[in-house]
Amino acid sequence: MSEKNYPRGFLLNGIAAGIKANGELDMGILYSQGPCHYAGMFTKNKIQAAPVRLCRERLHSPIHGLIVNSGSANSFTGSQGLKDAYILTRLAEEELKVKNESILSLSTGVIGEPLPMDTVKEGIKKLCRLIESKENKPGLFAQSICTTDTKVKEITRHFEIGGKQVRMYGSAKGSGMIFPNMATMLAFIVTDLSIAPLLMDKALTEAVDESFNAISVDGDQSTNDSVIHLANGKAGNPIINKEDQDYQKYKDTLKEVALYLAQAIVRDGEGATKFIEIAVKGALSQEDAQKCVSHLANSLLVKTAFFGEDANWGRFIYAVGASGCEVDETMIDMKLGDILLVEKGLRTDFKDQEASQYMKNHDLYLEINLGLGQYSKTMYTCDLSYDYVKINGDYRT
Amino acid sequence: MSEKNYPRGFLLNGIAAGIKANGELDMGILYSQGPCHYAGMFTKNKIQAAPVRLCRERLHSPIHGLIVNSGSANSFTGSQGLKDAYILTRLAEEELKVKNESILSLSTGVIGEPLPMDTVKEGIKKLCRLIESKENKPGLFAQSICTTDTKVKEITRHFEIGGKQVRMYGSAKGSGMIFPNMATMLAFIVTDLSIAPLLMDKALTEAVDESFNAISVDGDQSTNDSVIHLANGKAGNPIINKEDQDYQKYKDTLKEVALYLAQAIVRDGEGATKFIEIAVKGALSQEDAQKCVSHLANSLLVKTAFFGEDANWGRFIYAVGASGCEVDETMIDMKLGDILLVEKGLRTDFKDQEASQYMKNHDLYLEINLGLGQYSKTMYTCDLSYDYVKINGDYRT
Repeated sequence: MSEKNYPRGFLLNGIAAGIKANGELDMGILYSQGPCHYAGMFTKNKIQAAPVRLCRERLHSPIHGLIVNSGSANSFTGSQGLKDAYILTRLAEEELKVKNESILSLSTGVIGEPLPMDTVKEGIKKLCRLIESKENKPGLFAQSICTTDTKVKEITRHFEIGGKQVRMYGSAKGSGMIFPNMATMLAFIVTDLSIAPLLMDKALTEAVDESFNAISVDGDQSTNDSVIHLANGKAGNPIINKEDQDYQKYKDTLKEVALYLAQAIVRDGEGATKFIEIAVKGALSQEDAQKCVSHLANSLLVKTAFFGEDANWGRFIYAVGASGCEVDETMIDMKLGDILLVEKGLRTDFKDQEASQYMKNHDLYLEINLGLGQYSKTMYTCDLSYDYVKINGDYRT
Repeated sequence: MSEKNYPRGFLLNGIAAGIKANGELDMGILYSQGPCHYAGMFTKNKIQAAPVRLCRERLHSPIHGLIVNSGSANSFTGSQGLKDAYILTRLAEEELKVKNESILSLSTGVIGEPLPMDTVKEGIKKLCRLIESKENKPGLFAQSICTTDTKVKEITRHFEIGGKQVRMYGSAKGSGMIFPNMATMLAFIVTDLSIAPLLMDKALTEAVDESFNAISVDGDQSTNDSVIHLANGKAGNPIINKEDQDYQKYKDTLKEVALYLAQAIVRDGEGATKFIEIAVKGALSQEDAQKCVSHLANSLLVKTAFFGEDANWGRFIYAVGASGCEVDETMIDMKLGDILLVEKGLRTDFKDQEASQYMKNHDLYLEINLGLGQYSKTMYTCDLSYDYVKINGDYRT
């Protein structure tokens, strides 16, 4: 990524503050030289981490940036946790000389332990000094938010509005506990676009629904998941304030960025060896399509079959039936890649060997057509491997 | 088990008919010398195997016995599958000289392939000849129904009604795809009790709810799951026809037998190294208690934490919040065995080492008290190990 592609007026950086014992980067800052419109979406877990509560409170007010730490989630930390989140944002606001309550706090990592506040405060001071020096290091920011991630996930895109080039940057972390409603993931998407805040909300909701809410690694969701979207208007475009062609351009780019990051999370799924797109079509209702695809994307039997490169289509059928969606077995078609395995509820004369050969690909496509209606839903998931068990059996030890 | 403990008038046997390529036992017969009252409960999977449809049709009519095969599930086999199930039961009825539609068919194994009917027919003839010889080999029957099971699961119990000894025998198969609503499991519970059919239904529903519907290995349910309960009245007790003390005795024994078999399935869970009882208490509603315990029992993160012997209570909290039940984080208590980990939403001063030591046990107990109401629900589950992935990645190959 060349420097010129980053949205104007944003400065990002990351450091190793000492929260993680292993010396890896663990604190990041994202700062805008002018106030931003702010849209956000958060975990549906009924237990919400302190930083999520703070970010929710500040929704739709002008925001100057955020402090993020990995290594400790500040979740299930009682009233002290919320106090700590306020204290650390207040410190950043003072150091950066910006308005009260214009900085957000985000955390990811082990839950139930209080933030090491002395370490965090020192980290904030260092990060704010880096901002003063105007160094922009998005790569370090993207690295500082990682936990079990094996890869940094970031993307830049640009598009034109009213003759002005508009830029967008996104980065995300997450590789386990990934399930619709944004499990253990943080994503940050910033742009220098000038746009009305309500339209940002609308576009973000749509983009998240088709990206971060359409991925699954292991079917669990965390207490900290957040997607933060900021726009500071520095591109100088005529403000977008209705759903016209310009809005569409912005929304398409936002979706592209969100989908890229969401898929990157699945590709980096803990122990994943396969990337699988599952499409359910022909459902009687949108809810049925969602139920069915979600059950398939989370079924241990389906996920281990993909790991074993076994075209065990019987398991896919089990999972369809177990999902609770309306099913007429005599109407089901099933495709693996381009191979039609099942037609109107019966096995076709496909060759086992051809199906097995297809399963050796890294990127796989499974399509179920229920043949009952016109609703469809796609999800992205990964397989379940020995290494998933290893990573999660050993996480803290 | 000594001969005298088996219910009177029942003959069981099993053979290697040749459905399984590896020469293991794959067909069994269960026959009563007199007609039985018959109660049954079946999978909630929306796709139901042919034998399940046949068994449902014959519910509540007098039954003489059943033919069961492993190795092929006769599921997703279209109208031919249902025809095959009729043909095979008709053959058994003729061979045994019993009334039309008085024999049941049950199948378990790979789905989507038609039954090898020539092999099955030969098997039925052999099994019926064994019945003529009056040999009773429940152990062979229990073996013939197994698929990925590593252990035969059977139990006998007796109790007294009106001075007569009443006997009960149960056997079951199942080790994967186990989830509430009886996933990939078959269970047979027979007794020589004399009892009104409606009371059998009632007792079975209660017993299954607290046993086969309270276990989880991997959160999936199959198309074939069935619990078959037969009573032939040969004990000669005065018939039970109201919910008196005698009914209570019978129901308690039925529950004991069902719970033993259900727990044996979890203990034999594919790759399982731990047996875990999870109790959710203090829920606002029964539905909430069910949601919460079911999410915990099926969470990959929870199951891998148990495999890793890691007292990672943060994961248990995640799962509680993700379950969708009503939660007030400041009211939650959590116990691992006798160790109080969390009290009113905060970590206690328990010693990490003590908790880690406890996790080394084979049998584990986790209790979550939501502190909101008086509803509770217990489930039994196992951990998720490398071997689960191995068994399920390699099942067909």
